[in-house]
Amino acid sequence: MDLSIIGYDPAGAWMKIAETPEELLGYRNPSGVTWINVDSLTNRADIIKLAETFGIHPLTVEDILDTAQRPKAEEFDDYIYITFKAVNRKLTSEDGFHVFEQISLVLMESTVITFQEMPGDSFDGIRKRILNNAGRIRKMGADYLAYAIMDAVVDDYILALDSLGSGIEDFEDRAIDERDGSFVQDLQKIKQNILRVRRVVWPLRESISGILRMESKLISSEMEPFYKDVYDAVIRAVETVETYRELIAGVMEIRLSTVSNRMNSVMKVLTIISTIFIPLTFIVGVYGMNFKFMPELDMRYAYPVTWAVMIIIVIGMLLAFKRRRWL
Amino acid sequence: MDLSIIGYDPAGAWMKIAETPEELLGYRNPSGVTWINVDSLTNRADIIKLAETFGIHPLTVEDILDTAQRPKAEEFDDYIYITFKAVNRKLTSEDGFHVFEQISLVLMESTVITFQEMPGDSFDGIRKRILNNAGRIRKMGADYLAYAIMDAVVDDYILALDSLGSGIEDFEDRAIDERDGSFVQDLQKIKQNILRVRRVVWPLRESISGILRMESKLISSEMEPFYKDVYDAVIRAVETVETYRELIAGVMEIRLSTVSNRMNSVMKVLTIISTIFIPLTFIVGVYGMNFKFMPELDMRYAYPVTWAVMIIIVIGMLLAFKRRRWL
Amino acid sequence: MDLSIIGYDPAGAWMKIAETPEELLGYRNPSGVTWINVDSLTNRADIIKLAETFGIHPLTVEDILDTAQRPKAEEFDDYIYITFKAVNRKLTSEDGFHVFEQISLVLMESTVITFQEMPGDSFDGIRKRILNNAGRIRKMGADYLAYAIMDAVVDDYILALDSLGSGIEDFEDRAIDERDGSFVQDLQKIKQNILRVRRVVWPLRESISGILRMESKLISSEMEPFYKDVYDAVIRAVETVETYRELIAGVMEIRLSTVSNRMNSVMKVLTIISTIFIPLTFIVGVYGMNFKFMPELDMRYAYPVTWAVMIIIVIGMLLAFKRRRWL
Amino acid sequence: MDLSIIGYDPAGAWMKIAETPEELLGYRNPSGVTWINVDSLTNRADIIKLAETFGIHPLTVEDILDTAQRPKAEEFDDYIYITFKAVNRKLTSEDGFHVFEQISLVLMESTVITFQEMPGDSFDGIRKRILNNAGRIRKMGADYLAYAIMDAVVDDYILALDSLGSGIEDFEDRAIDERDGSFVQDLQKIKQNILRVRRVVWPLRESISGILRMESKLISSEMEPFYKDVYDAVIRAVETVETYRELIAGVMEIRLSTVSNRMNSVMKVLTIISTIFIPLTFIVGVYGMNFKFMPELDMRYAYPVTWAVMIIIVIGMLLAFKRRRWL
Amino acid sequence: MDLSIIGYDPAGAWMKIAETPEELLGYRNPSGVTWINVDSLTNRADIIKLAETFGIHPLTVEDILDTAQRPKAEEFDDYIYITFKAVNRKLTSEDGFHVFEQISLVLMESTVITFQEMPGDSFDGIRKRILNNAGRIRKMGADYLAYAIMDAVVDDYILALDSLGSGIEDFEDRAIDERDGSFVQDLQKIKQNILRVRRVVWPLRESISGILRMESKLISSEMEPFYKDVYDAVIRAVETVETYRELIAGVMEIRLSTVSNRMNSVMKVLTIISTIFIPLTFIVGVYGMNFKFMPELDMRYAYPVTWAVMIIIVIGMLLAFKRRRWL
Repeated sequence: MDLSIIGYDPAGAWMKIAETPEELLGYRNPSGVTWINVDSLTNRADIIKLAETFGIHPLTVEDILDTAQRPKAEEFDDYIYITFKAVNRKLTSEDGFHVFEQISLVLMESTVITFQEMPGDSFDGIRKRILNNAGRIRKMGADYLAYAIMDAVVDDYILALDSLGSGIEDFEDRAIDERDGSFVQDLQKIKQNILRVRRVVWPLRESISGILRMESKLISSEMEPFYKDVYDAVIRAVETVETYRELIAGVMEIRLSTVSNRMNSVMKVLTIISTIFIPLTFIVGVYGMNFKFMPELDMRYAYPVTWAVMIIIVIGMLLAFKRRRWL
Repeated sequence: MDLSIIGYDPAGAWMKIAETPEELLGYRNPSGVTWINVDSLTNRADIIKLAETFGIHPLTVEDILDTAQRPKAEEFDDYIYITFKAVNRKLTSEDGFHVFEQISLVLMESTVITFQEMPGDSFDGIRKRILNNAGRIRKMGADYLAYAIMDAVVDDYILALDSLGSGIEDFEDRAIDERDGSFVQDLQKIKQNILRVRRVVWPLRESISGILRMESKLISSEMEPFYKDVYDAVIRAVETVETYRELIAGVMEIRLSTVSNRMNSVMKVLTIISTIFIPLTFIVGVYGMNFKFMPELDMRYAYPVTWAVMIIIVIGMLLAFKRRRWL
Repeated sequence: MDLSIIGYDPAGAWMKIAETPEELLGYRNPSGVTWINVDSLTNRADIIKLAETFGIHPLTVEDILDTAQRPKAEEFDDYIYITFKAVNRKLTSEDGFHVFEQISLVLMESTVITFQEMPGDSFDGIRKRILNNAGRIRKMGADYLAYAIMDAVVDDYILALDSLGSGIEDFEDRAIDERDGSFVQDLQKIKQNILRVRRVVWPLRESISGILRMESKLISSEMEPFYKDVYDAVIRAVETVETYRELIAGVMEIRLSTVSNRMNSVMKVLTIISTIFIPLTFIVGVYGMNFKFMPELDMRYAYPVTWAVMIIIVIGMLLAFKRRRWL
Repeated sequence: MDLSIIGYDPAGAWMKIAETPEELLGYRNPSGVTWINVDSLTNRADIIKLAETFGIHPLTVEDILDTAQRPKAEEFDDYIYITFKAVNRKLTSEDGFHVFEQISLVLMESTVITFQEMPGDSFDGIRKRILNNAGRIRKMGADYLAYAIMDAVVDDYILALDSLGSGIEDFEDRAIDERDGSFVQDLQKIKQNILRVRRVVWPLRESISGILRMESKLISSEMEPFYKDVYDAVIRAVETVETYRELIAGVMEIRLSTVSNRMNSVMKVLTIISTIFIPLTFIVGVYGMNFKFMPELDMRYAYPVTWAVMIIIVIGMLLAFKRRRWL
Repeated sequence: MDLSIIGYDPAGAWMKIAETPEELLGYRNPSGVTWINVDSLTNRADIIKLAETFGIHPLTVEDILDTAQRPKAEEFDDYIYITFKAVNRKLTSEDGFHVFEQISLVLMESTVITFQEMPGDSFDGIRKRILNNAGRIRKMGADYLAYAIMDAVVDDYILALDSLGSGIEDFEDRAIDERDGSFVQDLQKIKQNILRVRRVVWPLRESISGILRMESKLISSEMEPFYKDVYDAVIRAVETVETYRELIAGVMEIRLSTVSNRMNSVMKVLTIISTIFIPLTFIVGVYGMNFKFMPELDMRYAYPVTWAVMIIIVIGMLLAFKRRRWL
């Protein structure tokens, strides 16, 4: 099992790597904040042992191990259990989109335990701020650490949305330029990924407003503006998703209109060529008939007159097309 | 009537099959939990007698026997009545989709009675856990048994949705590959079945939150996290339904776009062939005319020159098509 | 005026027909429940007199006489006024759909007065149950009678919806088989009738939940499960409407796809025939030219070779169509 | 300024026309109700003076003079200020639709002041009822007068909607019969006008429920059923708008389907004619070739045999079209 | 840094330009209201210093400097922090649309500080009213100044919407007249800009209702109608956005219908010309055949008879087209 432990207080900070849950107990930081991070859920036995050591309820342990959880926040006697999905920084899906992993956070008095579904988190920034004493984090409690983790996760949502959003912009050009190809399928893939982000972001809204309503002694009242900040960021992410959906709907409309315009222009060419030449072909057919008694055939100027008539017909048709604005 | 009775307490468990409601009374388990299961609603008289024996209100009996009930939960003086639809494990509909049956659950002090519309339940897992003392079920009360039953039912919803979901994935390929056939009808069938799942899942949400609000002495306060778990699973199922609807809408858009692209390409072939050959046919028609005085006919190189002109026209047209990117 | 009066108590029941409001007073049933039914609103003077006799507020009388009322329930000092639309059993609209009439129900202490917009009610079942002492109705009060009336009305909604629903099923076949005709108009008519049912059912929901909240002494507390039952039936009707709307949307999609497939297949036939024969016609045109110097014309095997070339072209084209899966 | 003053009490009623706000004071009716109506907002100075005379807050005066107000109801110390849009009875818009004007109503103890944006109100009915002592209006207070005015305004909405609704019915026929023309534009105009009605009706809902919640001493408790009546009428108007929108969506679907059917039938004619004659033209082209060695040309029955072959081809094609149900 | 300071009380007003935050302290107006305006956020150090001078919380400072904030209003001990987006009066986007900048407003006891993202505000009207003692602003407190600023911002939204709205009207004509071109893309751009306005307006609704609920001593109770006024203006702006969206949807429907009508008319021309001339071309082809034994060729009137037959066919077809109303 990959266990990392970080301890800190305003005076200092250290980081250790433990192999077994037992090792942890020796490392706990009595005066300051302890942050234990578990990097994968594969070693179930050790996770259960770790949870027991810290008095975590068996139901919470089940939730930690079941990665199909919806984001939620639950208050227990000694801790608050928060679970959400985070963008994994190491993996991408086959078609190049973001992969989400489940993160469970247990916030106790002066201790935070995070369980990650797989390695590849986005908390290095927080670790650096703790170890280098950057910003206010060393001066704050475990409730601030929990906030900082959620804040990093929501920031990653917004980064993920930004990258999807710049993908949509490409589609605005492709909608007009691309002939056949997989335009609609590609657009649908972007859309599904945007909806996937919404599915992980949306329930987080409830969770955070749930935490704000808990009035737990684990979260000091001065944390409220910080949690409201995360809440606002979540709302912003949800609004961005809605904006993108509207953009995609707009791109789709442009696409449909482009395809239909192109079809129209194909049809117009066909119609113009056909309506000009079909009557002419009829005329030349007439004088290709082999009737014995066709007076025109013997006339001296019949041939040039036929040409003249045909040219007049063509000019007349072109004028008619012009008037109908087909040319 | 098919009556099965299971009795259990932490110390042991047994299962009996009874023929008549009267037999049951002898079997009741005074110290532990008794679970009576009725496997079909065809024998109305016996069901009414059974209900009377256990003091169930006539209105509840009417609800048990009327299989067109909406899922709901009602509190009575001595029991809580919960009804919902479950996926039947034995039957499938004509076109291979899930069949739902109504299940009525009466939760009393230390007794649970379940009435099934037809045989084919999904409770064998629970029975095994009771008889083999697996998990915590033997240590818990009737309220936990009711939870376990609802949990099994909701798990089956999610399985049903998963099988529908994998059906949708096939459609993503069919949308592009399939020519004629029944694509849209088949997609509509999947959609209707997904909506049918939603219709049975959605009201369960209210029922469970209703149970949580009842503050009945029949449900001990430590059951709350369990019922919340089922509630979360129901929400997850509803969200899955929404996801599938969006997927289906996406598949439909891909289909429409594919069909329209195919139409466009048919039209383009027609237009290219027509616009190339119609003018040529006119030219050869000209020299098929039988006018006496057509100077070209007698010229030595008229025939090869005509061919040359026609070849130039073809090349010119192909270039024009190229420029318009039709080729 | 068509006045029918039914009186009943657990011991017996009778039914009378009165001509004038005055007659009624003699008939009232002091010990049990009296149900007065007015079968049409044409005789306004008598209705006003009747209302005065029973102490009904002038505003309620206005509402009874105005058949454009929205379904609603209002509590007055001595009575509860409930108005709703019922399916008329005698009339159908021009195009064979249901007609709704307004029914006003005044629930007083031990008396129920119903005002119907026109003859053709659906209360014969209730009358029979009263006169034949079937079910529990004779043992219950006026509040149960009001429930029974609303229950009969809601049952009729569901019957009406069922008949509309079986109409929709026919459309699933028509969507594929029908060529021209009035498919879309007919479907729109079904849809409008379904929406009409929704318009009468939906506000009833509020009315009944309003009655449940009134805590009027006119409705005994043991009636609550009965009124909840009607409420559930209304919700079921509303959900059925939503299901039907989704079905209709699905049928419409199948229709659009069928029509577009048919169009595609027409276009394909045109394109195949045209692209095969237009080039051939050009070739035969070439050798129909009358140039003096056309060496091919004099060659011995030119004619069979031309045929061979044309057959090769046809085979080549058929292979090309095969590869594009047009055949 | 056009100032009309009506005073009434159960015993009598009179109406005066004043030129200046000062005149008014002499006319006020100490024992009964006074209704002052200002017919246009052009004379701002006089309106401000009038408002001061009656102790109306400067903010209310600003609202009265700003005709871009949303309908709203506000409670002040001495009066309730209600503003809404009314159908103007004198004007119609360029394309024959309704024009709305703003009406501001100040309800004081025993006085009602109405400010209209322009002449052309719909209150003549109320004036007549006051002067002729029809109905209950003379017996009631200023709160009833305010109700009567709002009731007249909402009745006009419903009339306006009815006239728009009968316009929609015409479109159901036009959707099928009309060839080109401005069908869609006209339908959009109707739709926009229906939405305009909704925009003025919808906020009135809030206003009236706001008035009902105010518990102001200016509105006696026995007015509640009257105000609820107006509220119900507003809801009915909003529901009518929704119905109309659904009707218009249905008409649009019928239109689209009609246009597409017509297109299909055009395409079918083209395809039938082309597929029949293009192969025939090829055949006759073959025997128009001038090869020296074409044995068929010299055969005795070649010509009638060619005709026979062509007729067989035509019959075969017609049968094929029949089988595909194109004919 | 561009710092402007305005001080005023009923007796007088003055305006100063400061270079550094320190200068400000000397300028503060102890008896009246002081309004400090910061014109850009580029000089972060000075802004932080200024904020410290006035006791602004570090979190608020972060929010002021982060221009990706959602509009919100927060109450702190000594001040209310309100942030929103304003139309910038100096800049327009590349394609000629409005640019929004973030404005942060700190409302303190008798002081208002505004931070603008970039120069180009819309507050000159307010400055003039203060310096020229126009309207009531000089007599009111800092809470009125905050209102006046928000009012100016919301007025600018409505101006921006008006200019977008008049843009939509042009599209109603373009939908019918424009042939190819960028109609749909241009319409999408208008739509996106309207949605951008909605995104900045919508959250302002919550902010203002939040301010109204704060019951802060910083906002005197007599300000309530003023803030409600801004609230109403915001609602009006949101409703305008909805109206525009419906207009755009309507324009799009007109466009689609116009394009499809045009396509239909192209197809009809093609079909009419083809169905008339293809059979005629066949006929003349028949008599172009070179069979030896074709009795018609030698007949005296065969040629004029052929013409007669062809003319009859043309007339027959024209009549058929007429009957189908294609002409």
